[in-house]
Amino acid sequence: MGVVGTRVPRVDAVEKVTGRATYVDDLWFPGMLHAAVVRSTEARAKILGLDLEAGLAVAGVVAVAGPEDIPGPNNVPLILKDHPLLAPGEARFEGQALALVVAKSREAADAGAAAVRVAYEPLPALLDPLQARSPDSPRLYAEDNTFAHHRIRRGDVEAAFAEAHVVVENTYRTPAQEHADMEPQGAVAVPTPDGGVVIYGSMQCPFYVQRAVAQILGLPLGRVRVIQTTTGGAFGGKEDVPSEVAGQAAVMAWKVGRPVKLVYHREEDMRSMSKRHPAHIRYRTGAGKDGTLLAVEAEMTYDGGAFGTLSPVVLWRATVHTVGPYRCPNVKVDAYAVATNTVPRGAFRGFGSPQVIFAAESQMDEVAHRLGIDPLELRRRNALRRGDETATGQRLTSSVGMLETLRRATRESGYRSKRSRRGRGSGPVRRGVGVSTIYYGAGLGGLSPYLTRAGAFVQVHADSSALYAVGTTEMGQGMRTVLAQIVADELGLPLERVSGVETDTSRVPDSGPTVASRATMMSGNALRDACARVRKNLWGVGASLLGVGPHQVEAEGGVLRCRTDASRSVPLEDVAAECVARRIHLAAQGWYQAPRTSWDPEVGRGDAYMVYAWATNVAEVEVDLDTGEVRLLRLTAAHDVGRAINPVGVEGQIEGGSLQGAGYALTEEVLYEGGTLLNPDFSTYIIPTAPDAPEIVPVIVESRYAKGPYGAKGFAEQPLMGVAPAVANAVFQATGVRVRQLPITPERLREEIERSNGNR
Amino acid sequence: MGVVGTRVPRVDAVEKVTGRATYVDDLWFPGMLHAAVVRSTEARAKILGLDLEAGLAVAGVVAVAGPEDIPGPNNVPLILKDHPLLAPGEARFEGQALALVVAKSREAADAGAAAVRVAYEPLPALLDPLQARSPDSPRLYAEDNTFAHHRIRRGDVEAAFAEAHVVVENTYRTPAQEHADMEPQGAVAVPTPDGGVVIYGSMQCPFYVQRAVAQILGLPLGRVRVIQTTTGGAFGGKEDVPSEVAGQAAVMAWKVGRPVKLVYHREEDMRSMSKRHPAHIRYRTGAGKDGTLLAVEAEMTYDGGAFGTLSPVVLWRATVHTVGPYRCPNVKVDAYAVATNTVPRGAFRGFGSPQVIFAAESQMDEVAHRLGIDPLELRRRNALRRGDETATGQRLTSSVGMLETLRRATRESGYRSKRSRRGRGSGPVRRGVGVSTIYYGAGLGGLSPYLTRAGAFVQVHADSSALYAVGTTEMGQGMRTVLAQIVADELGLPLERVSGVETDTSRVPDSGPTVASRATMMSGNALRDACARVRKNLWGVGASLLGVGPHQVEAEGGVLRCRTDASRSVPLEDVAAECVARRIHLAAQGWYQAPRTSWDPEVGRGDAYMVYAWATNVAEVEVDLDTGEVRLLRLTAAHDVGRAINPVGVEGQIEGGSLQGAGYALTEEVLYEGGTLLNPDFSTYIIPTAPDAPEIVPVIVESRYAKGPYGAKGFAEQPLMGVAPAVANAVFQATGVRVRQLPITPERLREEIERSNGNR
Repeated sequence: MGVVGTRVPRVDAVEKVTGRATYVDDLWFPGMLHAAVVRSTEARAKILGLDLEAGLAVAGVVAVAGPEDIPGPNNVPLILKDHPLLAPGEARFEGQALALVVAKSREAADAGAAAVRVAYEPLPALLDPLQARSPDSPRLYAEDNTFAHHRIRRGDVEAAFAEAHVVVENTYRTPAQEHADMEPQGAVAVPTPDGGVVIYGSMQCPFYVQRAVAQILGLPLGRVRVIQTTTGGAFGGKEDVPSEVAGQAAVMAWKVGRPVKLVYHREEDMRSMSKRHPAHIRYRTGAGKDGTLLAVEAEMTYDGGAFGTLSPVVLWRATVHTVGPYRCPNVKVDAYAVATNTVPRGAFRGFGSPQVIFAAESQMDEVAHRLGIDPLELRRRNALRRGDETATGQRLTSSVGMLETLRRATRESGYRSKRSRRGRGSGPVRRGVGVSTIYYGAGLGGLSPYLTRAGAFVQVHADSSALYAVGTTEMGQGMRTVLAQIVADELGLPLERVSGVETDTSRVPDSGPTVASRATMMSGNALRDACARVRKNLWGVGASLLGVGPHQVEAEGGVLRCRTDASRSVPLEDVAAECVARRIHLAAQGWYQAPRTSWDPEVGRGDAYMVYAWATNVAEVEVDLDTGEVRLLRLTAAHDVGRAINPVGVEGQIEGGSLQGAGYALTEEVLYEGGTLLNPDFSTYIIPTAPDAPEIVPVIVESRYAKGPYGAKGFAEQPLMGVAPAVANAVFQATGVRVRQLPITPERLREEIERSNGNR
Repeated sequence: MGVVGTRVPRVDAVEKVTGRATYVDDLWFPGMLHAAVVRSTEARAKILGLDLEAGLAVAGVVAVAGPEDIPGPNNVPLILKDHPLLAPGEARFEGQALALVVAKSREAADAGAAAVRVAYEPLPALLDPLQARSPDSPRLYAEDNTFAHHRIRRGDVEAAFAEAHVVVENTYRTPAQEHADMEPQGAVAVPTPDGGVVIYGSMQCPFYVQRAVAQILGLPLGRVRVIQTTTGGAFGGKEDVPSEVAGQAAVMAWKVGRPVKLVYHREEDMRSMSKRHPAHIRYRTGAGKDGTLLAVEAEMTYDGGAFGTLSPVVLWRATVHTVGPYRCPNVKVDAYAVATNTVPRGAFRGFGSPQVIFAAESQMDEVAHRLGIDPLELRRRNALRRGDETATGQRLTSSVGMLETLRRATRESGYRSKRSRRGRGSGPVRRGVGVSTIYYGAGLGGLSPYLTRAGAFVQVHADSSALYAVGTTEMGQGMRTVLAQIVADELGLPLERVSGVETDTSRVPDSGPTVASRATMMSGNALRDACARVRKNLWGVGASLLGVGPHQVEAEGGVLRCRTDASRSVPLEDVAAECVARRIHLAAQGWYQAPRTSWDPEVGRGDAYMVYAWATNVAEVEVDLDTGEVRLLRLTAAHDVGRAINPVGVEGQIEGGSLQGAGYALTEEVLYEGGTLLNPDFSTYIIPTAPDAPEIVPVIVESRYAKGPYGAKGFAEQPLMGVAPAVANAVFQATGVRVRQLPITPERLREEIERSNGNR
């Protein structure tokens, strides 16, 4: 039996609910100072002068630093190398870091930063992403302000549109979304006696931070050690940003030779840190009379903000997911990520796909409506099945659970009866049911194949208790519980005999970032490799104690027994003790390389991902036509996860992601005016709270992935992604009007209703 | 070439001299409290009552604990399991821990501990070790107060003595010696959210501490992590004792659920912590007319103090080394470690052998004197050579550098001319030259073969910088420098590209204790194994880049080249980058098992150690006959170390150990009266300071040990061990009188001179 697949409480539950977990702001080191960041108040301006001396004059301030104090290159390394750690002469967005102050207290550091006078010469700002590629716009990046352009060319879309029974073309807009982690960005940099530095911080990707800090300080990687502290939420916002935060702390620690803590204030965090890319998507869909999808054409502009950061890969994922989980022989996609004078946009759960999925799934609903086919039936007809090819030409060979999610979501939601009962009706309050079906490439894909590997460490002690280390991070998603379950079953131990140590770059080799729903697959498989190596020694000695061959034994719950004669058994505690007596090695490094992926950038063809997760969302809404207010009543979310290693955790991810998706659908929108952020706090940036939460019905579908640990595949970003279109489609059923810009605020819905009434 | 064998500065030199190293008392954690220990003022007493409430009433005190608060067994686990963490009803020595107090400050904790009233009923104390085995003495351990009895039976000593030309029999006494580490004992216990604990502390043996704390708290080993902090000296005093200190901190941390720091005061440290065993040795030597050693008989009583701790193994090492580095066909040894009501004695550089070496080498001098043979010549004649058998019947097959140390020490010291010039002379100030030759089993021996293994971890980063971890500890001996040199040469990197991480039980499996001069051999070989695994991948890719076979390449200084065509080369940085691009695994756990040793306890026969270090000391003294004062002028110390991986470090060890040996010879003596320590500070316990230091001439002899890393073998305890007899022998040459009790204080020497004058 084992513990994989059983419902276990999170291994980190107690520390979280009792407040015993140690977050970065809980840390203190002897001699530690506090840093603050001087930030641009302008969207774009030449910096004529920085009066750092004024900051240094503030009581308690120990040192100040500008760009010239950075020992290495003034750059936060990522993809395009255009992102300075401190603006070297021109500010490119409101909130950009200009200088650093370090002081004896946080308050003194803030006062010092506030005292630094900056002389600006305002420059024309580029704020509209649709203008970015125009030759008249200010040049922020390369010749055409384009960080990336990805394309798909498949079949002949023009010919297909000409033959289509119906062609639907619309433009969709989605906003910047704020990660809204409970814990803001923060890092502590501690200089080490050997001339290196240890970084502690809230982060997803310690190896990114290691590389960034090594480069910024001009150190070999071996002298930079990065330790993740308990991380209070991330959602992609702690993928690239912590490199910058840690880099700032490290520069000051380097300068003063003392530990330096830098924890962002909430407003500062919201003003300066990455967001989901706002997108503008023109989407054209052609279908046959029976609903068969014939062609998709899309042109998308993703607003990358001031620096490239992760935009090229975010855009790539959007591109790959343009069509959705359907067969479609003719596809043309052009996707652009462009520069503007706004905060750089980066990773956010779904990584570019929620935007295009909102468009694609709204389009599917419109096609169904135009053809008079039930939207769910339309999806069923076009659904990718095993053996089919995706829009990028990838043949799907296993773990294709799309239809099963559709079937289960239909049944669990009571879709058919509700759909037929709902609709326009009369009176100001209307109800509607909407559906979306999506898929999502699990793990990193064909654009960064070299990253698709991970290390792990396992050791078994003399009392048979086990300890493991991995290179991926726990940020609230439940990875530690899943990995402990895997180690327990691999070694045959009870779960409570397995402990993990914090993620630390000095324990296993670079295991890539913890993003793209990859941790369970990558670290899980690396742990399986490490466990297999330890097991060979441990179980081998156990078999010899039982007098049977090494392949005749199995273990569970701490007892090793002969497979064919259960009466022959020995506690693993005794086996481990015997191994120690015999000086047998019970530790190993494990390694995992994911299956190869591919990508041809010219035509957008390739095996983009090793495997896909699938989902169907059914949203039930209540709309007040008078106020335009939408209440999401119930969301049935069926997700194919391959295998639910911890079903409680999977359900938790579905619930959390769905609620975050509800926020994206209905309330969350980062607002700017002239490059200035208008809502840098949670009283004006509205995330759903418990009273806003719909009833969420999580449904687990398990279409096992043979190459995943115990059949599991990554899925945890997916719950956010299909909510907005399901809600938009439900609103359409309830009201007959369609909102093509997120979030579906009362104002936007009222506007559409009025336009629709005017048209009548 | 590489860096092994070259003179490199210590890798931890800068942190030590700049004060940047972090010692345990530098640590702080959120919510941390401070502990103090209530200690017995009696050598032996029944504890009628402990008024812990009085301690709790002191302002700032948060909690108090007695034996009943220990979650697991009230025991500090080691060999005999007789040592309670807190005295459970009877105090057995002055300074024994009775109870614990934890408070908001160190001062409050001390005040709380002082306020705890203890009601004692004094019991008769056993203070004379020679009375311990008498049936009339109080029973402290088992039936006869004997912690251990070891023996050697070889040949027929009585027959040999009957035939001997000369038989010399004397009794020798050596004192308890204090380790006098610059940093006292200390630990911080930090409860972890998962119900475990992390221990930070000054220590030699993290795996001992892990086992002790796990047992004391009743936790699996996987929930106890032990991290060594920078350790300011150890010398054996941090082998077993930190288990007790960490156990005390852990009990309080467990009780209050907060981090607890416990750092001993100097006086408390000296009063409660282990010392070198005082010894009483009756030694009988028989030799032929030409000086051939015919028989040795010894009966030794080592005073173990109140609890067994390490006494059985300390005594074993003494037993094995009884005869010294000489052929001797007839040997009879009976060695006893007994209990008394004094502080438990434990490990101290040399681990039982300096005591018996003082006796043995004094005896050799007397034999030479009686036979009229130069003492150095006598030693040469009897010296063990390759192919000879030791007193325990071990055939010496390699790395037998005894005669070479003798030759080099003779030459470097100018022994012959000085010896002939010196001697009795006239006037009150006399000079003399004395010699000793010794050997020392390197590493753990035949009594604990299961401990003779070690793990290691190595990883190479994308820029080719390397990081390593081991399970042995740096305590000032220079291990980190030696191991970094080994990693550098194994991988072909410059030394500055190699970094180590602190020793932490969660990084490599239990690698045994850092004692017995074993770290270089054990961790060095484990690292070689780990490096070989990484090298296979790293160099393999490099060879493919050069277009040659994997066995045709070599690397040095960061460059990989073809062995037969030096023009074909590639920087290892490029190779590492290519490995990352190819997703090649560049990390490994290494493992090393030392060659088997053996021991037959009935007759004291066996291959006691895998290899031996050898040394010759020549001491030159000046003695004031009127005051009895001895000045050690010059010490020439030639040591066979197999291979000096870092000659500077070897010389440093020779210098430091020689000075510690000078203290043992002349000034250091822990004084008791009625079980009470009389000199618990450094104004009354006299260690040599710079002005007391003789000129020390370190001489390195390299008789390579094929199974050691790069030919090295452990030796670093050895420099202490031969000093006292060389000094005693020099004093004898200078004065004609022999002092058979250490230290050779002016009072003792005057007494001998007067007795000698009286006899005349």
